[in-house]
Amino acid sequence: MQQGYCHPLSPNGRTSVVESPPWHYGADILFVSFRADEAEVRKLLPEPLQPGKDPGLAFAWIADIISCGADPDLIYKHPESSQYKEGLLAVSCEFKGTPGWLYPYVWVDQDFSLMRGWFLGFPKKSAKVFMTRIHEQNPILPQLGVGTSISGFVERYGTRPMAASLAITGRADREELPNIGNTYNIRHFPNVPGSTTPSIYDIVNIQPKNSRFGDIWKGDATLTFGGADDEEVRALQPKEIIAGYYYQVGWSNDIDATVVHTFL
Amino acid sequence: MQQGYCHPLSPNGRTSVVESPPWHYGADILFVSFRADEAEVRKLLPEPLQPGKDPGLAFAWIADIISCGADPDLIYKHPESSQYKEGLLAVSCEFKGTPGWLYPYVWVDQDFSLMRGWFLGFPKKSAKVFMTRIHEQNPILPQLGVGTSISGFVERYGTRPMAASLAITGRADREELPNIGNTYNIRHFPNVPGSTTPSIYDIVNIQPKNSRFGDIWKGDATLTFGGADDEEVRALQPKEIIAGYYYQVGWSNDIDATVVHTFL
Amino acid sequence: MQQGYCHPLSPNGRTSVVESPPWHYGADILFVSFRADEAEVRKLLPEPLQPGKDPGLAFAWIADIISCGADPDLIYKHPESSQYKEGLLAVSCEFKGTPGWLYPYVWVDQDFSLMRGWFLGFPKKSAKVFMTRIHEQNPILPQLGVGTSISGFVERYGTRPMAASLAITGRADREELPNIGNTYNIRHFPNVPGSTTPSIYDIVNIQPKNSRFGDIWKGDATLTFGGADDEEVRALQPKEIIAGYYYQVGWSNDIDATVVHTFL
Amino acid sequence: MQQGYCHPLSPNGRTSVVESPPWHYGADILFVSFRADEAEVRKLLPEPLQPGKDPGLAFAWIADIISCGADPDLIYKHPESSQYKEGLLAVSCEFKGTPGWLYPYVWVDQDFSLMRGWFLGFPKKSAKVFMTRIHEQNPILPQLGVGTSISGFVERYGTRPMAASLAITGRADREELPNIGNTYNIRHFPNVPGSTTPSIYDIVNIQPKNSRFGDIWKGDATLTFGGADDEEVRALQPKEIIAGYYYQVGWSNDIDATVVHTFL
Repeated sequence: MQQGYCHPLSPNGRTSVVESPPWHYGADILFVSFRADEAEVRKLLPEPLQPGKDPGLAFAWIADIISCGADPDLIYKHPESSQYKEGLLAVSCEFKGTPGWLYPYVWVDQDFSLMRGWFLGFPKKSAKVFMTRIHEQNPILPQLGVGTSISGFVERYGTRPMAASLAITGRADREELPNIGNTYNIRHFPNVPGSTTPSIYDIVNIQPKNSRFGDIWKGDATLTFGGADDEEVRALQPKEIIAGYYYQVGWSNDIDATVVHTFL
Repeated sequence: MQQGYCHPLSPNGRTSVVESPPWHYGADILFVSFRADEAEVRKLLPEPLQPGKDPGLAFAWIADIISCGADPDLIYKHPESSQYKEGLLAVSCEFKGTPGWLYPYVWVDQDFSLMRGWFLGFPKKSAKVFMTRIHEQNPILPQLGVGTSISGFVERYGTRPMAASLAITGRADREELPNIGNTYNIRHFPNVPGSTTPSIYDIVNIQPKNSRFGDIWKGDATLTFGGADDEEVRALQPKEIIAGYYYQVGWSNDIDATVVHTFL
Repeated sequence: MQQGYCHPLSPNGRTSVVESPPWHYGADILFVSFRADEAEVRKLLPEPLQPGKDPGLAFAWIADIISCGADPDLIYKHPESSQYKEGLLAVSCEFKGTPGWLYPYVWVDQDFSLMRGWFLGFPKKSAKVFMTRIHEQNPILPQLGVGTSISGFVERYGTRPMAASLAITGRADREELPNIGNTYNIRHFPNVPGSTTPSIYDIVNIQPKNSRFGDIWKGDATLTFGGADDEEVRALQPKEIIAGYYYQVGWSNDIDATVVHTFL
Repeated sequence: MQQGYCHPLSPNGRTSVVESPPWHYGADILFVSFRADEAEVRKLLPEPLQPGKDPGLAFAWIADIISCGADPDLIYKHPESSQYKEGLLAVSCEFKGTPGWLYPYVWVDQDFSLMRGWFLGFPKKSAKVFMTRIHEQNPILPQLGVGTSISGFVERYGTRPMAASLAITGRADREELPNIGNTYNIRHFPNVPGSTTPSIYDIVNIQPKNSRFGDIWKGDATLTFGGADDEEVRALQPKEIIAGYYYQVGWSNDIDATVVHTFL
């Protein structure tokens, strides 16, 4: 009998593209909150999801992430499977009066993260992601801080679906960061060809745990969406940049995921 | 309301990572049929799948594929989304007395093929795939034919999960090729963290249509499985090479996919 | 003592990134001839190179290439080292009254081609290159011919330094193709830090041999240059498209390379 | 007239694949010193280079590097051109009685580093490089220190030319690290086809400056060489592991490079 958390299932269950949850993350994040066109945000929210109190509120990040499952030795045994970079977009929403975020477009550079994302309703595509890194010992680089600029972009087939930058102006407190814990994602998986009803189509609520923050910097941010002509992320071009941050954060995606609505 | 065949769903349905079926394929294939350890093949076949009449019978291919959905202009508008390369392994099986094939391990180099595979129960991982190509106008290359050798391999993180070669000895008829039409794949998709029952877990029967063959060559083949130490494809190392072919083929994955069993 | 055609030199000379010449090529090429701004072309031609009779004349191609050195078995033993894709730009010039072409910007997706290019004065950068491919057996794809469209582009860090397309309108004769044989490239290699004079800086004349042509198609072409803001290929944006072709060609870069001028 | 530090030369000199020196580096390094077969090391040292006092002494590293030229804003304007990873091998040598190191085999994942290496006599090939990274905020990862293990490997076409690991046992002082400053590299660049004498073939002495060290850890190391069958790095398989370190370091490759011998 085949075993494993997910495909590829195998006799000993060791070939799955992702380990079973819980998953633990540590990330360096270039974060930009912004307002998009309210009508465009609304188009991304199927009933019963509703626009949030600030209906055009959205954020994007470029992130450099180290993740693993229950066994922290993954970073040693398979460093290639513990590192990925991500470009992510979130729009604000409400579910039965509770505010949260839905993630309509996400790009990652590794298959384990691509699939793990789909399992949790993050609709990921493959891409390359680049982001400024500073090395403290490089003789002419500044130390991270006021005056330092950070940039990043997502690359997909010769286009940049997302590009962001931040000119750091000071430190920020954790309280200044938007509360991004409560997620309402759409899980979706097509049925076999010939069937018009998806095999999975529901809303999953995810509440990350164990959040830990390192340094938090704020500054002046830019954010643009691009990509191929038919990439609909273009409709969410920022109308107003609210704030920008660069910070280190850790969290766990533990067992608190719940299907709160099904469309089937 | 979001639209689209699959994630990412979007207002106009144009961002899905794969177009909706039917899908049409044209491929150059380095094909090796072989016998693997019968006990190991059996481990890959969950009830009610049974070993086939020749219980260790298996095949592998390395393929260079041009695929599209209903719109053939994809190859012009998005060439990057119409080309991929694949390493694939199949083991023989029976479902209620009908012979077929199950595909336990597959590697591809593009996200659209990765996801399309999962939709159809092909448990794909990302990899790079390399295979000999000949160009008729290269002044010192032989024309494809007797005496020509072809090789290919799958690359994943500095390992070669699959490597194959063929020294062409002659032409073959279509009838010599194994009948690989009837597929019994396992569709599997995990549930949200905290739930131990998968969201999808069934057997899907796929019968490709419109098969068309170009040149078919046969020859002396080699095949080896490798990859990281924990890749279980290693257990299927060929005990006997049966035959090797290099051929061009086209087919469609039309609406004939049917869920024939559910494990849930 | 170390041996080999080029670095990495090694005791047995088998680790060189490229084999020694001659090199043999077979290519599928999307070719667009055009006129660029004459003043911009002139800026690319150091004395004693002069503008050609048609001073803004230029061409670009996107190519899918199979190449090898003296041993054609490379395509079997190391398929990964015999295949590359290329975006290339040429501007017309004259050297002492003899017309030829200089290649100011070229992108390739493999290190062996990158270095081989530098050895011959092709100033290559790394990139990914995508181009339409048709598979004859794909059930819904047209056969290559009138009405078929081909496109291609160069990808570098989320930008497209070059993109081209062709809508095929008919067959063409070999005589219609521009004569692209005679090349005047600039070989350049910096000296060690602290020295302002390059170690190599000359003009090399290359005359490919053994040209062989397969099918040649012509049609209506487009061509655009892009890339990062500081990519100077942007200055050569086509002012007029002259012609477009898609064809198969083979050639050898044999021993006919000659340094015809040195700047040192 | 074309301008620029190196190819591609261009009217404004902004398209060169690498900026002009000086270059500044900051790196996280997994370092393993070892003894290789003395006869094999000797084969890598052309006269007048001689084996060192400890003739089989060698070291290898896997490194994650942030580098730039004179403008530190590169990390912001073009993060994609300031980051690379490297696998590197060094063998000890002497030049006229002065001890130093020669680097016979190096792999990097970016073209700017590939070319910059060739300019300085580092015979680089393209590869992917993976190495353990720890994120301090990941909830279940250990903080870097005693008990932490680090691993890394070089990937080239489905093989691992170099793989290393370190189990950290304690802190080390800077004085414990081998002195790796003095480099005797072989610059080599082929002549045009038809000429058997290289255009460049000499020994360059490089003395990095501004070395700065961050944390230095030591531990129990492993190191293996692999790669394709014809990769001659295999001949240098460690006979004895001497020591292993993981540390942060910065340095500059300033104007102190000197050609100390020519083979032409």
